[in-house]
Amino acid sequence: MIKQNNVIIIGAGLCGSLLALRLGQRGYKVTVYEKRPDLRKVDISSGRSINLAFSDRGIKAMQLVGIDKKVEPLCIPMKGRMLHDEKGNTILAPYSGRDNEYINSISRGDLNALLLNEAEALPNVTIYFNHKCTNVDFENTTAHFYQYETKTNIVEKADVIFGADGAGSILRKSYYLGKKFLFSFSQNYLTHGYKELSIPPTENGEFKTYKNALHIWGRNSFMLIALPNLDGSFTVTLFLSYNEGEYNFNNLTTKERVLDFFKKYFKDALDLMPNLVDNFFTNPTSPLGTIKCSPWHFKSNTLLLGDAAHAIVPFYGQGMNASFEDVVEFDKFLDDGKDWESIFKAFEKSRKIDTDAIADLAIDNFHEMKGHVNNAIFREKRKLEMALEKNFPTEYSSKYSLVTFNENIGYYKAMTQGRAQDKALLNMIADHDISISKNTTKEELAVILNKIQKETEEIIEEDKIARNLKL
Amino acid sequence: MIKQNNVIIIGAGLCGSLLALRLGQRGYKVTVYEKRPDLRKVDISSGRSINLAFSDRGIKAMQLVGIDKKVEPLCIPMKGRMLHDEKGNTILAPYSGRDNEYINSISRGDLNALLLNEAEALPNVTIYFNHKCTNVDFENTTAHFYQYETKTNIVEKADVIFGADGAGSILRKSYYLGKKFLFSFSQNYLTHGYKELSIPPTENGEFKTYKNALHIWGRNSFMLIALPNLDGSFTVTLFLSYNEGEYNFNNLTTKERVLDFFKKYFKDALDLMPNLVDNFFTNPTSPLGTIKCSPWHFKSNTLLLGDAAHAIVPFYGQGMNASFEDVVEFDKFLDDGKDWESIFKAFEKSRKIDTDAIADLAIDNFHEMKGHVNNAIFREKRKLEMALEKNFPTEYSSKYSLVTFNENIGYYKAMTQGRAQDKALLNMIADHDISISKNTTKEELAVILNKIQKETEEIIEEDKIARNLKL
Repeated sequence: MIKQNNVIIIGAGLCGSLLALRLGQRGYKVTVYEKRPDLRKVDISSGRSINLAFSDRGIKAMQLVGIDKKVEPLCIPMKGRMLHDEKGNTILAPYSGRDNEYINSISRGDLNALLLNEAEALPNVTIYFNHKCTNVDFENTTAHFYQYETKTNIVEKADVIFGADGAGSILRKSYYLGKKFLFSFSQNYLTHGYKELSIPPTENGEFKTYKNALHIWGRNSFMLIALPNLDGSFTVTLFLSYNEGEYNFNNLTTKERVLDFFKKYFKDALDLMPNLVDNFFTNPTSPLGTIKCSPWHFKSNTLLLGDAAHAIVPFYGQGMNASFEDVVEFDKFLDDGKDWESIFKAFEKSRKIDTDAIADLAIDNFHEMKGHVNNAIFREKRKLEMALEKNFPTEYSSKYSLVTFNENIGYYKAMTQGRAQDKALLNMIADHDISISKNTTKEELAVILNKIQKETEEIIEEDKIARNLKL
Repeated sequence: MIKQNNVIIIGAGLCGSLLALRLGQRGYKVTVYEKRPDLRKVDISSGRSINLAFSDRGIKAMQLVGIDKKVEPLCIPMKGRMLHDEKGNTILAPYSGRDNEYINSISRGDLNALLLNEAEALPNVTIYFNHKCTNVDFENTTAHFYQYETKTNIVEKADVIFGADGAGSILRKSYYLGKKFLFSFSQNYLTHGYKELSIPPTENGEFKTYKNALHIWGRNSFMLIALPNLDGSFTVTLFLSYNEGEYNFNNLTTKERVLDFFKKYFKDALDLMPNLVDNFFTNPTSPLGTIKCSPWHFKSNTLLLGDAAHAIVPFYGQGMNASFEDVVEFDKFLDDGKDWESIFKAFEKSRKIDTDAIADLAIDNFHEMKGHVNNAIFREKRKLEMALEKNFPTEYSSKYSLVTFNENIGYYKAMTQGRAQDKALLNMIADHDISISKNTTKEELAVILNKIQKETEEIIEEDKIARNLKL
């Protein structure tokens, strides 16, 4: 019954185009409206989020729609973090002790283009570009658009409207301003912003530094990172306070100060970035925000998905993966074939706890990336975890692995288990209860694993009574 | 220098009128604009928040402005929670083991009137009523008002503008809609709403039930409470889900259903409420929301205070006390005599951690009030805490006491210490490590106190490493 429905999707970004593809495969009549031009025809990259981390939860979504093999050639595996200190020394800190676990660098544009091609190939999916949504009348399931090309306003009605229109969602804004129901909503900004820069390839089109890692120059109160691109370049991102510290975005106003800053803190990176100053003053500085809200749906009429429902900061490399996972999880509820309202309600009830968790984890990871990678206890913890994952691959997963490589465990469970584990590990290392060296044997590791598991369980158990009482 | 400044305060509610009084005492030229009529001349109670819990943090603010003795006659002490079960049995659960620690029921209107009188008595304070703020141009330190009486719009400029305009603050809305800076903001609603009802006095003007307690009919998923008024009546509040459970606000639509609901769950209260049905259908159902935001100020021009900056749910009885404490804390920074911007910045930096904490504590207490008061482990914890406070008055304070009766400890510290204590207590009671009976001696209590202190310290210590790493 529901399958005969006309569906509007607002937004043909990563989430919207995947949703269009999936709903198209299921037989719905899908119309997508995207405010930007078709990225397959016009270069619309503007110094923002050129490449992204793509990992198991995202791959699972590609499998669902049957294009995982087509995505593979777009991926550059990153096996770990390449940590750069101020003297230019580097050390590779792997993401996992298991060889088959790594994350990928992928071009946002390439992946989006693939999803658009796949969706548009279906006869029941139509995509319109240059249509900016201006308002959603959610009570009447009607969306208003401004057509840039014809400079006219149009109104479209559907049986159901999905807002996959990103962090600045117009559907979400319509909920908020409409005041037709109690709408819980938060937008929280970090004190830091970000700016994209670049390491170009060598003259021969080769990578100027190690290709298969996510490079990090962590300096405690700020950091630089770099992810590889297929063309041999790296997209570099500077995360820095807007107005605090000796150097910040507000006071980096001259070529000289920018160069001083990079010379002092990122000397080895600077040597690879001939266009630093140009990039710095051409590319925008953008804010880092977390958005949460509830409810995501209005009756049986409309539903928010992806960043529109839960925008997160980029530090866990899970933003796109979480949005793709939304489609996987939502898809499960479609099998029930109930009415839209109960599908929407059940989806949010099961999903929001996980998207809230990854939002919080992503903020935690900001602190880990810019600072803790330099902390002795933290480094020992990671060393120990790598050894445990290597020696006991089916028995131990770090918090990072639970979040990143265990697509069948929800983010909330990964967070709860992972945080308890981290607490156990950090306290036991600080108390010299456990430690690791080159000579630690597998038998000794087994004892350590047992201790960690016992302590982790105790922590979870002790939290339980207070949590059940919500104290 | 700053003292010569013209100051506008938006809102003459509890926070705005206290701020006017204090800034007036300090010599500023203060003009207050309030959207409602003068509550000293017109009865504007409308079935919402007739009386409030008033405790030590609020008293400290009254002392600051020298009117604590004038407030005393308005107070009705409440020594504890009078818990009513479904059969009408009652038990008094004291708020503290120390005799001099209790909270007070006070009339919002009476207290507001006193503050208005005191403020208006100063020659440098002027208060205008019936002036609805419609917008604040914070860049130009200009506020726009609509005068209900003359039906005209006016624009007022000042050296500095304070937004003490409550949970629906127009200044805060101007920050949000202005998009001139990154404004973090959240509004979060509970699934429950509330409705005020009443227990009238006897024909002789006496209290129909025990006067010196906060009465609670906790039913796990909903609850009824009652606070005494000076005229012998009680203001009763029903907290109930909008749309979940057998009975909820959305389905209590007929006289019969309302009576059935009260007969089933609140029989002894129903017997005291002859006007229940009238009240139920006359009085509004209102939402319960938490608002947080940052920054509170814009440069040296404007500052949010009280509910406008941090509206909380009412379950810790701290809403008014927290707003009053804002004025006490803000006042401290005025002594420095620096420019407004650095005063505002320093105030928010020191204060926000505490208002965030009381917001979270207030939500926790909702669960405690409606349910845990019926939980065996929770009851044993409270019994033990009362005995500890009685026998070791200078050495032990429960979380409730830390929050409510320790006005020189910030909410954040009270929360951190209190939660660790609660966790220690609950786990040790559940494990039968500690217990209390009629025969427990002071020596035995001393041993228990020692155990609790040790376990609490360990919990705080164990959280520290992970917290420092923000994991």
